[in-house]
This record gives sequence, structure tokens and C-alpha cells, in this order.
Amino acid sequence: MELNLSESSTRSIRCIVKLGGAAITKKNELEEIHDKNLETMACQLRQAMMKGSASSKVIGMDWSKRPGSSEIACDVDDLGDQDSSEFSKFVVVHGAGSFGHFQASRSGVHKGGLEKPIVKAGFVATRISVTNLNLEIVRALAREGIPTIGMSPFSCGWTTSKRDVASADLSTVAKTIDSGFVPVLHGDAVLDNMLGCTILSGDVIIRHLADHLKPEYVVFLTDVHGVYDRPPSEIDAVPLKEIAVAEDGSWKVVNPVLDHTNNKVQTSVAAHDTTGGMETKISEAAMIAKLGIDVYIVKAATPHSQRALNGELRESVPDDWLGTIIRFSK
Amino acid sequence: MELNLSESSTRSIRCIVKLGGAAITKKNELEEIHDKNLETMACQLRQAMMKGSASSKVIGMDWSKRPGSSEIACDVDDLGDQDSSEFSKFVVVHGAGSFGHFQASRSGVHKGGLEKPIVKAGFVATRISVTNLNLEIVRALAREGIPTIGMSPFSCGWTTSKRDVASADLSTVAKTIDSGFVPVLHGDAVLDNMLGCTILSGDVIIRHLADHLKPEYVVFLTDVHGVYDRPPSEIDAVPLKEIAVAEDGSWKVVNPVLDHTNNKVQTSVAAHDTTGGMETKISEAAMIAKLGIDVYIVKAATPHSQRALNGELRESVPDDWLGTIIRFSK
Repeated sequence: MELNLSESSTRSIRCIVKLGGAAITKKNELEEIHDKNLETMACQLRQAMMKGSASSKVIGMDWSKRPGSSEIACDVDDLGDQDSSEFSKFVVVHGAGSFGHFQASRSGVHKGGLEKPIVKAGFVATRISVTNLNLEIVRALAREGIPTIGMSPFSCGWTTSKRDVASADLSTVAKTIDSGFVPVLHGDAVLDNMLGCTILSGDVIIRHLADHLKPEYVVFLTDVHGVYDRPPSEIDAVPLKEIAVAEDGSWKVVNPVLDHTNNKVQTSVAAHDTTGGMETKISEAAMIAKLGIDVYIVKAATPHSQRALNGELRESVPDDWLGTIIRFSK
Repeated sequence: MELNLSESSTRSIRCIVKLGGAAITKKNELEEIHDKNLETMACQLRQAMMKGSASSKVIGMDWSKRPGSSEIACDVDDLGDQDSSEFSKFVVVHGAGSFGHFQASRSGVHKGGLEKPIVKAGFVATRISVTNLNLEIVRALAREGIPTIGMSPFSCGWTTSKRDVASADLSTVAKTIDSGFVPVLHGDAVLDNMLGCTILSGDVIIRHLADHLKPEYVVFLTDVHGVYDRPPSEIDAVPLKEIAVAEDGSWKVVNPVLDHTNNKVQTSVAAHDTTGGMETKISEAAMIAKLGIDVYIVKAATPHSQRALNGELRESVPDDWLGTIIRFSK
């Protein structure tokens, strides 16, 4: 596997955050962003990044024309003498939610076969939809004063081989971080050595980034309070507080102690979800935890997600914290 | 300079097209796209790419939700048994026009200095504006059935050293072309080794791509009928039909024969144009012509641009063709 990441950098990444598709979009409304959630998530992210330093005025960085206006509003005059805020280093990856999935599943982009006109058209349509979402996420975070840079995996040279990452130019991601920006990557349609093309999910991107950037912790922001032993819509679903990952990558629930002998977790996967659901998420999270990096799966835009983003859970986990911790255990 | 372009490919690029900022946007209206022009340009581009093959039904590739609708319209059922159309290989680069320039010039992004909060914020704001434009261009071309892939130079690893290209991952561009897609790059804010950051103009991108991809010809689509001997708004401005470029990169007008001894061309540069105007364009075009590649500067969305895009001018130039040809002359 080709990797261009220079090892000489002094960067130390604090956190990689996944903004789950189900949290940032209205999953049952095609191409609709969950503005309210997203705004709270951006605000929490900013607070987590600024932690420790004095809270200064938010410098909005989306200077686009607003609908109905012919002018651009930006208060750059206020910026002249302001100190550059020190942000700790974060990387953001988001899912697709109600963007891209329609186009991908309708055309079968995830199964490959670029020689077919419908797959080629679907590849273009999928990329349009997910880059549209990426732009909206970047704008929402920039409005909150986070210096975000949208980076499409396709453009960054990410390719796959039978859906596994085959190449990824992490040097551009690293340079972006070192320059004080927050890269915002996303699940994308990419070229695949064997299949022609496929869908690279945000979760696989996170695992790859975690492996090479070695963040202190990883947070998955989703639309439920972590992982449950069965679909959370079922009335007796039990939230799983802690999952331990062994050296061989296998994982088991250690808190709560489940009474059924087989503690395999049942999960629901939406029919239109071309990249797998909670099952994929746990497997990917387990692979990250195996690297010695704590993973928190938590409901977005809640006090629990703020605590996870702040890194407060690394020492001890308060009893009233809702969410799932996935940890390496020797 | 680091270059990752594999030399083993069999690709042969027919044409690199610059969609000038002044042609695709309404230059005096902030962040407004010139929809009518753009639609005609997309249609002409498609015809040029399809030349020689039977004109088949346009397969729209922008399957996004339309404003006011809750459903996505795409006629994928028609695609199942359709043959894949053979397109000749084109690369598209567009300028910024009324996108990005405000944000860049207001903050001084082109002068560098990322440690200043206003430059950092302006960098983020500029990238949001130009990637927004890129998405709209990609969508317009995709609606016309051109299998476009938006690729931001920043994400593709383009960096500069005192505004000259220092690195560029052309391997992803090449792979995209080889897979049957049309990469759409654009003028972008990028990191600069010396300045911290700057603006990389579409014209510099074109020259770099031409140097490494060796297209048969390059077309600049703009808002005037080529290059004039003085600002085209002046009543006695003379259109220049042919400019000859010498081995040392110097250039002179060979048609018409100008009566003033000093045939230096006067040009106008809009005050908010942070990347230079016609002067930069001619210098960049001359550097391309020096490689033995014909350059045509022509007014977009006219019969003249269609002829240029078709490559009809390479053998002989009809008397009624309006535009400027820049050619290498030994």
C-alpha cells in the first residue's frame, strides 16, 4: 500500500470526530440537512477544540452571500488585531446520511462496473451529492469559527482494492492540520483497483486515519445513545456501556454484564445504507481500539457528546454518562 | 518539484479547456453564476467531446433534488441497455469570476501570512466560495451528460513556492481521465512554502497541466472575442488574430500587422482580480504554445468557441473565425 505521509512532522492529533450521517441529515428526507443538530455539533466541537484557552469571540469564516442578499457580510474589520486562537488538532469525517445513498444504491456504484453507463452516471451523481453535503458541513463549522477545509477522499487520491483502502495521500491531510486547519473528509465514491469503483465509507476512512495519525481518542457522533444489544427502537434494548477489544481484534461487552451467554449484538441496518450500519461501525471501532485509541460512540448534540469531545472520559467515566466506550484490553 | 505522474499510461488528452471566470459568472454580481452562458458552454463541450460518434440521448448525471421537490428525478431506467458513449479526453479548469475574489482580496490571502487571523479566516472563506462554484460547474456539465468529477487543487496536493507550482498530484488527475471521467479543477487557495498561503490561478493550473499531460490543444473561453491590442472596451481596440511565440518564450503579434512599432498589448485588469488579468493570460498561453500546443482564446458560447473546442482550427483558420490563436513558431 502506497502512503505518502511524512514522518518528520511534530503534529499531535487530539481527536478524530465522525459526524454520523444520521445526526447531520434528516435520514428519511432526501438531501435534507439537520440544521439544528449541526449547529449544536459545530458549537460543541469548537468548545472542545478551544478547551483551556479563554473563550474569545467567534470569528465566522463563511463569507458567502446569503440567500436574498446581494452583499457579503463579514466582520473582517474586527479581526485585524485579534490574536490567533490556539486550537488543538482535530480531524472531522462525516457520513452521507440522506445524501449520496440514493444515487449510489440506485446505480450500484458500490458494486463497481464503471463500464456500465448507469454506474458511471451514478458515480458522478453520487459524488455531486456527497460533495454538496461536504460543502454544507464545512460552511456550518466555519460559521462557528472552526477553520475547516473540505477534502474529498477521491481528490486526495484515496483508492481501494476490493473496498479496502489501497492508497491515500495523507501528506495533504497532515499538511492541512499542521497549517492550523481542520480537514473535513467524507464518505465518497472512489476508484477501486479490482471493481472499477466502489463506495468508501466514512467509518473506513476514520480507521485508516486513526491508524496513521494516532489521535488521542476518536468520537463517533450518532443519533442514538451509543450501541445497544439489539435495535434501539426495541423497547427492551439494553445500552452497552463498555466494549473491550482483545489483541486478536475480537470484542465483548464488559459493562453491563449481559445475562444471555452469546453477547452478540443485534443491529438494524437501513435498507438503503450501502456501507453497512452499526455492525460495521463496531468492527471499525474495534480495529481503532486495538491500536490503543479509545473510541466513544455517543448521541450528537447532547451533554454526553460534549464530554466525549472534550476528552473528559479518558480518565474516568461518570455514572451518568450515556454512550458506549470501546477500549483495548490486554 | 515533486511529481507523481506515472508515465506508463496510454492516455492521450485531446484538449484542456479553461472556463473563464468572466464567462461562467456575472462578474459584477457577487457569487452569481451566468446560467445561460454555462448551459451553452456545457452543450458545446459535449458536442466537441462526442465529435465523430452518433449523437445519442443526453444522460443527465446530476441526480440531486431540485429546489421545491422532495424527490430525486433521474431516468436511470433508460440507461440499462445503453452503450457507453466514447468521449475523447478533455480536462476542464475554471476561474473564479465573482466567486472567491471578494474573500481573497478582502483578507489578502494571495499575499500569504496564515498566522494572521484575517488571512486564515479569508483562506477558509475563499475555499468555501470557490468550491461552491466548482460544485455548480460540475453539476451544470453533468446535467449535459458530461461525466465530470470536481477536483480541488488544494485537495489534490497542489502547493506553491512563491506562487509557482511546487507540487501537484497529477496521478489522481490522470487516473480520473483514464477511468473515463472529465476532471474539473479550479483556481484555489493553496498552501505556499514561502508565503504560507496564496491564490493559485486557473491559468497557472492550465499551464502546469498542459506541460505534463501534453494535450493536442488548449482553449480559453472568455467573455470577449480573444485578445485586443488595448482594453476591448475602447472603441478602436484591434482584435489580435495570431500571436507567435519564439523559442525563448517571447511573443509578438503576427496577424494583423500592427502599425505601431511597439506591439506591446495594453490590457485592463479589474481591480478585484487578485490573479492578474489578460497580461497573465497571454504569458501563460505563450508558455503553453512554447510546448508546441496551440492555444485558442475565444468568446464563450459562440459559434467561434464551438469551432475552437472541436479542434477545427488546427489545420486552417477560416477568415470569419473570431478569436486569438497563440502558436509556437520556430
